Amino acid sequence: MNLVEKFRELTIKQKAYGYVMNIVGWDSATEAPKGAFQRRSEMMGIISGELFKLGTSDEYQTVVNGLFETIEDLDVELQKEIRRAKKQLEKIVKVPENEFVEYNQLIGLSQRLWEEAKEKDDFEMFKPNLEQIVEYSKKFASYYDDQKHPYNVMLDDFEEGMTMDEYDRFFDVLKRDLVPFVKQVLNSGKALNDDFASKSYDKEKQKIFAEYLVDVFKFNRDGGLMKESVHPFTWNTHPTDVRLTTRYLEDMMFSSVFAAIHELGHALYEQQVDPKFDNTLLNGGTSMGVHESQSRFYENVIGRSEEFWSVHLDKFKEVFPEQTKDVTLDDFHRATNKVEASLVRVEADELTYPLHIMVRYEIERKLLAGEIEVKDLPEVWNSKMVEYLGIKPGNDADGVLQDVHWSAGLFGYFPTYALGTAYAAQFYNTMKKEFDVLGAVKENNISTINEWLKEKIHQYGGSKNPKELLLAVTGEEFNPKYYVEYLKEKYTKLYL
Amino acid sequence: MNLVEKFRELTIKQKAYGYVMNIVGWDSATEAPKGAFQRRSEMMGIISGELFKLGTSDEYQTVVNGLFETIEDLDVELQKEIRRAKKQLEKIVKVPENEFVEYNQLIGLSQRLWEEAKEKDDFEMFKPNLEQIVEYSKKFASYYDDQKHPYNVMLDDFEEGMTMDEYDRFFDVLKRDLVPFVKQVLNSGKALNDDFASKSYDKEKQKIFAEYLVDVFKFNRDGGLMKESVHPFTWNTHPTDVRLTTRYLEDMMFSSVFAAIHELGHALYEQQVDPKFDNTLLNGGTSMGVHESQSRFYENVIGRSEEFWSVHLDKFKEVFPEQTKDVTLDDFHRATNKVEASLVRVEADELTYPLHIMVRYEIERKLLAGEIEVKDLPEVWNSKMVEYLGIKPGNDADGVLQDVHWSAGLFGYFPTYALGTAYAAQFYNTMKKEFDVLGAVKENNISTINEWLKEKIHQYGGSKNPKELLLAVTGEEFNPKYYVEYLKEKYTKLYL
Repeated sequence: MNLVEKFRELTIKQKAYGYVMNIVGWDSATEAPKGAFQRRSEMMGIISGELFKLGTSDEYQTVVNGLFETIEDLDVELQKEIRRAKKQLEKIVKVPENEFVEYNQLIGLSQRLWEEAKEKDDFEMFKPNLEQIVEYSKKFASYYDDQKHPYNVMLDDFEEGMTMDEYDRFFDVLKRDLVPFVKQVLNSGKALNDDFASKSYDKEKQKIFAEYLVDVFKFNRDGGLMKESVHPFTWNTHPTDVRLTTRYLEDMMFSSVFAAIHELGHALYEQQVDPKFDNTLLNGGTSMGVHESQSRFYENVIGRSEEFWSVHLDKFKEVFPEQTKDVTLDDFHRATNKVEASLVRVEADELTYPLHIMVRYEIERKLLAGEIEVKDLPEVWNSKMVEYLGIKPGNDADGVLQDVHWSAGLFGYFPTYALGTAYAAQFYNTMKKEFDVLGAVKENNISTINEWLKEKIHQYGGSKNPKELLLAVTGEEFNPKYYVEYLKEKYTKLYL
Repeated sequence: MNLVEKFRELTIKQKAYGYVMNIVGWDSATEAPKGAFQRRSEMMGIISGELFKLGTSDEYQTVVNGLFETIEDLDVELQKEIRRAKKQLEKIVKVPENEFVEYNQLIGLSQRLWEEAKEKDDFEMFKPNLEQIVEYSKKFASYYDDQKHPYNVMLDDFEEGMTMDEYDRFFDVLKRDLVPFVKQVLNSGKALNDDFASKSYDKEKQKIFAEYLVDVFKFNRDGGLMKESVHPFTWNTHPTDVRLTTRYLEDMMFSSVFAAIHELGHALYEQQVDPKFDNTLLNGGTSMGVHESQSRFYENVIGRSEEFWSVHLDKFKEVFPEQTKDVTLDDFHRATNKVEASLVRVEADELTYPLHIMVRYEIERKLLAGEIEVKDLPEVWNSKMVEYLGIKPGNDADGVLQDVHWSAGLFGYFPTYALGTAYAAQFYNTMKKEFDVLGAVKENNISTINEWLKEKIHQYGGSKNPKELLLAVTGEEFNPKYYVEYLKEKYTKLYL
């Protein structure tokens, strides 16, 4: 067997372990009995340990390093795979095993501690763990590359090729062009007829409407399913097995509608990746940012458009006749785009959302450069909220403690949320030139949009990185101006 | 590390693979998208291959053989485990690997072929595969022990210690004492007021009642759940994670009720096994027969008793007021015990059920002794149905092709269904001497029954084999007379 065949064999084997871990994870998040937690942890500890051994074995390292030595002789997609494999290996094998184990234990404990700290609104309780996590993160980044700024190493983990310089340029544009615009909108004082949105909506009926949306968006039900979970997510096991969830809150009906559409965006991406990548490292969506560009596009550009509800409001009214008796299309559309300065990111509207991300990016940047310390976080957080959104959290639970990410060591993840939304606007700008996108939405012709995204983005899976994809699809590099333009045009029309 | 510790380590590792295969199997049977079939097969082929390697590795064989050499020095439960491990090893390692692979491919193909043959009512189509399966089964039995009758090897696979001699004695009793009694009941001509049972029952409401039953039987919801599937089953991953299904057919309401109670019997058994066996080969229910004794006891003795419905008919009528308006407790109770000569085993009533099994046992016995050939099966089947039940299948789909078992090579499985039901009667005979069982049912006090079964049977898991258990619980060896007595008493009262 030659090295390429051996690489494929070892990759497929690792995929099988990933596959079962995915299914068990899905089960755990959607229906496993509470009491099964302990046994599952023990058993999955063994399985994930086996996967770790496979992914760091001498055999695998020999094969990857062997192929890396003569990488120029390989075909172009295999080169990408080997580069990715090599990078993953270096990130793991350079970390001493004992530190890796200690870190994982720390993360396990910290997530529970964070939950408790958030519940008790007690940052001090969480602080020592967060300090340790920051130290480990810096150290691991330096093992990988001690010439690079540690935050640059982390940013690249979540979005290949992204750096602080680029993110700085992006957020500077938002700060300059968006922050004043958001203040203008917030001060416009435009009233909405949105009382209907806070009425009580029966969960079973919300489910009926969410299932209706699954079909509207032409999700392939033979290759996936939708269920309910506490936090909505999309779970990709394979293009033939893509699963998403939404959640049903009786007093927050829009939550299930837009969580469903958002996750459908992620799910359609995964369903449309070319199956030729199945057994490679290039399967699935290419990056966090590009993934988020798809979910945000479906959620915001399509799902919060007047054209969309001009087709589907009747169905919504049919399912919820009492709550929507006097609601007009205009009322409904405006309600889906309500702008509010709010404290909690996951409940933020489309316009203020990136400012929540900016707060986190600036904090991470300073924290990992040693310019601020963990103990300063609550104060820095609150002052940035005042600066960008004009409101100050009344407590840390709704402030610096609100997100799970840092307790899991995920520094560098947040900025991809805003970046992805900005990618979406740039992709949309190109799409609009090629066909009447909202016209298609108005004709309930989502397939045309799905097909365009498949052809331009989805089919390539991980074989093009974000930068390659942006250039190929839009003809230029990432440019945040499309995002600002999109937001200004949309919200000027709605509010100013 | 000594041999015992090494054995434990290798066992736990195999359990982790079994664990993930269980969860994926559950997912596949209850909700996985149709199109995911191909990928799942590929991935699970790899995982099950890994488990096979672990279970036959030189290391594992050395450990098991090493412990087997000095087995008398081990504590008594470990002795049982090592004997079991040794036996399992010998059943696998004596089969040449290529034959094992060929056989598994044959089985894979045959199950699909059987489905098609059943659908097309075409036995000839399935015949060549069944012939091959019979040959392989005989050959594999002879590899394990060429001194034993192959059917004895197979019977022992499904119920430790059972032989043709013992089953012959059992079925002879049924033939002598039960067959004439069944004819008497069938000819009694007693009419039932059971029109209500064949009315249409809404699936969602059936679900409400099935969930009610889950609580009636004190199933621990923190350690398991109930869902829907095409064929009801119970899936045991661990005492903290026991899952069961029922099915909802609008025109066969009793199907969901009694499938739920039947599976709850299996599930309660699994939930009540002592957790000390978790990481041993003695976890879970001890045998097919004893498992079936529990499910049949809950389903038939409790679930089809007048006492049970004296408590729960009100709830049933509350859920289905229209269908049950004039139904009395007596009507309802009699309808749950309707006796009919029918063609299909899975739809058979409690009284005629063992005769369906007798047909299969006698056929398997002759087939594996070479006294009949595969080509004779349809004719032999039909003549036995006439002999024991007085009816002849109109086609092979409702005759010899009705069950999946033979297409999967499961010869020796069927008799455990009847045996388990007979065990149930023997256990029940003992239980009745210790407390008023139906009195407890009438007081909706299922916990007392669950506790008794836990103390006497469930807690021991696989640490007592069926023969040990029967002797310990009832003070005597297996005796089919209790079964015949139970059936005669119950159905005389109802019909004669």
